Amino acid sequence: MIRTAILGASGYVGGELLRLIAAHPALAPVKLYGDSKAGQPVSAVHPHLAAAYPDSAIDRFEGDLSNIDLVFAALPHGHSQKIAGEIVGTGVPFVDLGADFRLSDAATYAKWYGHEHEAPELLGSFVYGIPELNRGAIRGAKAVAAAGCYATAAILALKPLTGLIKANSIIVNAASGVSGAGRETKEATAFNTVDGSLTAYGLLNHRHTAEMQMALGGTLLFTPHLAPMNRGILATCYAEAEGPCEPLGRLTDAYADEPFVTVTNDPPATKWVTGSNGALVTARYDERTNRILALCAIDNLGKGAAGQMIQCANLMLGLEETAGLSTIGVYP
Amino acid sequence: MIRTAILGASGYVGGELLRLIAAHPALAPVKLYGDSKAGQPVSAVHPHLAAAYPDSAIDRFEGDLSNIDLVFAALPHGHSQKIAGEIVGTGVPFVDLGADFRLSDAATYAKWYGHEHEAPELLGSFVYGIPELNRGAIRGAKAVAAAGCYATAAILALKPLTGLIKANSIIVNAASGVSGAGRETKEATAFNTVDGSLTAYGLLNHRHTAEMQMALGGTLLFTPHLAPMNRGILATCYAEAEGPCEPLGRLTDAYADEPFVTVTNDPPATKWVTGSNGALVTARYDERTNRILALCAIDNLGKGAAGQMIQCANLMLGLEETAGLSTIGVYP
Amino acid sequence: MIRTAILGASGYVGGELLRLIAAHPALAPVKLYGDSKAGQPVSAVHPHLAAAYPDSAIDRFEGDLSNIDLVFAALPHGHSQKIAGEIVGTGVPFVDLGADFRLSDAATYAKWYGHEHEAPELLGSFVYGIPELNRGAIRGAKAVAAAGCYATAAILALKPLTGLIKANSIIVNAASGVSGAGRETKEATAFNTVDGSLTAYGLLNHRHTAEMQMALGGTLLFTPHLAPMNRGILATCYAEAEGPCEPLGRLTDAYADEPFVTVTNDPPATKWVTGSNGALVTARYDERTNRILALCAIDNLGKGAAGQMIQCANLMLGLEETAGLSTIGVYP
Amino acid sequence: MIRTAILGASGYVGGELLRLIAAHPALAPVKLYGDSKAGQPVSAVHPHLAAAYPDSAIDRFEGDLSNIDLVFAALPHGHSQKIAGEIVGTGVPFVDLGADFRLSDAATYAKWYGHEHEAPELLGSFVYGIPELNRGAIRGAKAVAAAGCYATAAILALKPLTGLIKANSIIVNAASGVSGAGRETKEATAFNTVDGSLTAYGLLNHRHTAEMQMALGGTLLFTPHLAPMNRGILATCYAEAEGPCEPLGRLTDAYADEPFVTVTNDPPATKWVTGSNGALVTARYDERTNRILALCAIDNLGKGAAGQMIQCANLMLGLEETAGLSTIGVYP
Repeated sequence: MIRTAILGASGYVGGELLRLIAAHPALAPVKLYGDSKAGQPVSAVHPHLAAAYPDSAIDRFEGDLSNIDLVFAALPHGHSQKIAGEIVGTGVPFVDLGADFRLSDAATYAKWYGHEHEAPELLGSFVYGIPELNRGAIRGAKAVAAAGCYATAAILALKPLTGLIKANSIIVNAASGVSGAGRETKEATAFNTVDGSLTAYGLLNHRHTAEMQMALGGTLLFTPHLAPMNRGILATCYAEAEGPCEPLGRLTDAYADEPFVTVTNDPPATKWVTGSNGALVTARYDERTNRILALCAIDNLGKGAAGQMIQCANLMLGLEETAGLSTIGVYP
Repeated sequence: MIRTAILGASGYVGGELLRLIAAHPALAPVKLYGDSKAGQPVSAVHPHLAAAYPDSAIDRFEGDLSNIDLVFAALPHGHSQKIAGEIVGTGVPFVDLGADFRLSDAATYAKWYGHEHEAPELLGSFVYGIPELNRGAIRGAKAVAAAGCYATAAILALKPLTGLIKANSIIVNAASGVSGAGRETKEATAFNTVDGSLTAYGLLNHRHTAEMQMALGGTLLFTPHLAPMNRGILATCYAEAEGPCEPLGRLTDAYADEPFVTVTNDPPATKWVTGSNGALVTARYDERTNRILALCAIDNLGKGAAGQMIQCANLMLGLEETAGLSTIGVYP
Repeated sequence: MIRTAILGASGYVGGELLRLIAAHPALAPVKLYGDSKAGQPVSAVHPHLAAAYPDSAIDRFEGDLSNIDLVFAALPHGHSQKIAGEIVGTGVPFVDLGADFRLSDAATYAKWYGHEHEAPELLGSFVYGIPELNRGAIRGAKAVAAAGCYATAAILALKPLTGLIKANSIIVNAASGVSGAGRETKEATAFNTVDGSLTAYGLLNHRHTAEMQMALGGTLLFTPHLAPMNRGILATCYAEAEGPCEPLGRLTDAYADEPFVTVTNDPPATKWVTGSNGALVTARYDERTNRILALCAIDNLGKGAAGQMIQCANLMLGLEETAGLSTIGVYP
Repeated sequence: MIRTAILGASGYVGGELLRLIAAHPALAPVKLYGDSKAGQPVSAVHPHLAAAYPDSAIDRFEGDLSNIDLVFAALPHGHSQKIAGEIVGTGVPFVDLGADFRLSDAATYAKWYGHEHEAPELLGSFVYGIPELNRGAIRGAKAVAAAGCYATAAILALKPLTGLIKANSIIVNAASGVSGAGRETKEATAFNTVDGSLTAYGLLNHRHTAEMQMALGGTLLFTPHLAPMNRGILATCYAEAEGPCEPLGRLTDAYADEPFVTVTNDPPATKWVTGSNGALVTARYDERTNRILALCAIDNLGKGAAGQMIQCANLMLGLEETAGLSTIGVYP
């Protein structure tokens, strides 16, 4: 078994990692780390995992990674750059969900995140973690920065179409379920605030924009929204076309052999992938406005977070890429 | 009292009209018409209105409008053009929520709705019903075609900004609560289909596009979505700017005296207007991409339907424009 | 106009009071008090009220009630007993939603609330605030302790049936929407915790039990639940019957002249009264088990809180009891 | 592989069976039957299963069970008794979710279901399918009638406590997510009807009462409710105690070795078992009223339907009882 440590085990992504690993043929979670809930048993932190992890508890991470074969981190923003040097130094395969090491360039990081990167020398050590984008690099990597949830959706929808699209014309309009905002309690994610409501946030400057631009090229405008649901991201993407084209066929070709990306004819619903690592994409060319419309639905905690982390880890460790993962959503 | 007839009284818009009229100082609903539930008491059709309308029932409309001072119609698509001639002929003020008479041009109608208009000679008799757009014309009108819910949201967000926007560059991305799909039961609007899910529909060719183009000029691309909530529309609109501009100030100026449109600094949430006739708008100029982002939140049954119908009727009848209407949402 | 002060104006009940008062013919909110949001404008605290209260703000209460004709208080538990003496001393009519003065007996209070009452000498000054239970006493009162939301529902369902019921046999099983838990953010009321979930809480010892017993007599067992909805309480009540009886007829007789209580034949849904002051009740006699089943649906913020407070105030002030209130829910 | 046929494969239980079987080490779904969607591919009927079952379709059942090793049926009420004779006659192991063969007695069936049983001679061939209740009988059975969802929850909560309880004193108050009402579209389960609403239904005479009485003894009163969530059942059960007792300890002892039943100290939330085969139970003795309170949370489609069917099949076929099943819910 691959002895796995999870940093940030008490959050929603941590809980999803534990759920998925419980069904994984090779991974075993031997160390669960978390600051705010250190000392608590899993049954108290994640009641849905109580029966599956009856004897596990959350500990405070003190830097010890001995006897660990794999590290997952799903930490609050900015924490990874404080500890990544130590982890990378051990040579233990490391999949980080933080935004800290997704961008290849420290200046771009500083521009979008509003502060200097604390470990710029490590940026080159990380591979950007979307297997469908750069599977080969992930296979050989010791450190992977798993992509942001919104970025994953937008990139899966648009990457195969970039040749059909005019530079700098992309608009990404996306909505996320509430778990994307993390587990910390705040009025913005209270039931009474969210239920029955839809709103945009982070106008003009959401940080995932930088990742999307890195992967897709050019400048683009991204507007995230909060939707009244637990999970799910739907990215609705627009771009000017270079001319008449068949984007649906392009997607079909691009994803023909991908185990987790399904091209749909109808517009996909986020619920079709709830709890799964699947991504559903479709696209249209609009002759009337000469625009391309591309959509992608994922589970923000699945393909947008924990699922993709495991998919990356499978590649890094030479396991079957699909081990412990599924395309099947829990429906209804 | 103004004796009011409601055609389509058993649907969600009909119910909302009855709710609003119950608090209206001048309107009294004397005839409630509906086909599928003809013969049933209001208490059976609209349980939330049972105590307020203990003695009312739904009847089948046979054409009799004697002793009626005002007609509201919220009928399934295509029904209005079959009966509008008769109603207009009586001279009784008529507010129709159908799409039948919103477009001024029969050819445009045929193109977007896929069939020839059955009463093209009446198109000129109707005024397009958004008071903030053409209050004067509504004041003098005998027949008003109240705007579509999506169109209302997009037009309120963008109309004051059209001078700042490059032609043919508008994209309207909007999501609606489920009541926008009407009361007819279908799997697409079942609880188990919708709850926890977000999806787009009507890709490229949703019919409200024609209204938006009529009001805003040029061609535009509109993508509607279904969100897991009862009520509410959020329109997130994009356009290329002619150059650096201050769209928020433009909205503030345009709506300074409007009783139902509030310009917000933060992105509005649909829930802030649930049950009200209010519209919340905001806008941004994005220097990085030279684009304008404009948002509008309304209640699809309020400002997007029944509220706007009453607002139009108030103007047509020379009543206080705000009579029986409110900006206050039911929250949480 | 009756100059009204609201203590606790920044909570959900405070917001609902402001919403209702905006449509009240006689009340005007001249002072809005709240500690945690003191200094903030209403538009920031209650975005749904922004347009209706453009110039109002929340202040810190320093004890000044000069030029005030009516005081509403919706404060965190235990606060009322600290300030009630002062308010009652002024002689200004006072409607308190706290549990502090609902019970007539200090010993019972101490038993259920786990601490000695801080102002037991005032208990006799307050009338228990359910107009359908003791309208006469409320009419003459200067101080009213409006009933708890769960208690209101259970008492409306059962009070007319007490003569049919065996002593000490009542079970009240009730579920509330999340707004009943107040506006303070906590993980138990986060969207991700609540959405898609139903749970019981406060097993055996929920404090509203004491109110129910005071009003209904004997001992009873009450189990509250948290349901994934913003508003609404459904109380499903069970009792052993003295023998065959017709509880539905008994309810019908008891509530024949009540403006806000409607007896339904079908089991009522909470949604039918969302946003209203209505209460819907029904009952059955089960011959098979010789039990009575009685149900009541209310809006916990309406008849269960702000609506009932205004109904009490109307009576205390000699206004029309229904002024500013409605039975009509916002549906769907 | 065990070649499995599913009758009723296009409903929600059918979809859940397909989801679970996809991860089952021994079962393979070789025939999917359904009337209303016969001829459609799985991808159209169950979009969440599209990638997992790319080549499967729904067929009309014509009676052929050759080359089938296991039959699951999740059919509309009353269908099973029309075809059970044929299936039982083949000797192929058969797990039926219908209510048709749950009751051991034709007269009781007729009383609760309102019509004569069409195949009373087969009633003795079926074992009532709750493994925690009668595992041994299920092991040797060829035909199992899997328990109703409500009945499963109530029986798991109460069965170990029956010795502590006075005869005929049980009250079961339970609420279900909407998927319990099946997939057929109707206004009662439309999003706009259910979202934000809680209601009781089937007052006094819900048919699951008969099952509960069969398993628990005596007469009991059961009230089902519809809660605004996709999945989940919470049963809140009351009974008079014979005297002071420790029901929580009794549950702990009873379920010590059960793989799917977890005794919790806190009241369980339905969401903790969403998508799983787990059941969470707790109980209290209330000295004040001498009553026992017992709660159980399950997923109505999991332990309440498809999960329990597979658990039964595992036993019937001599497989590991937990094969293909999990206690882990999808959270949040």
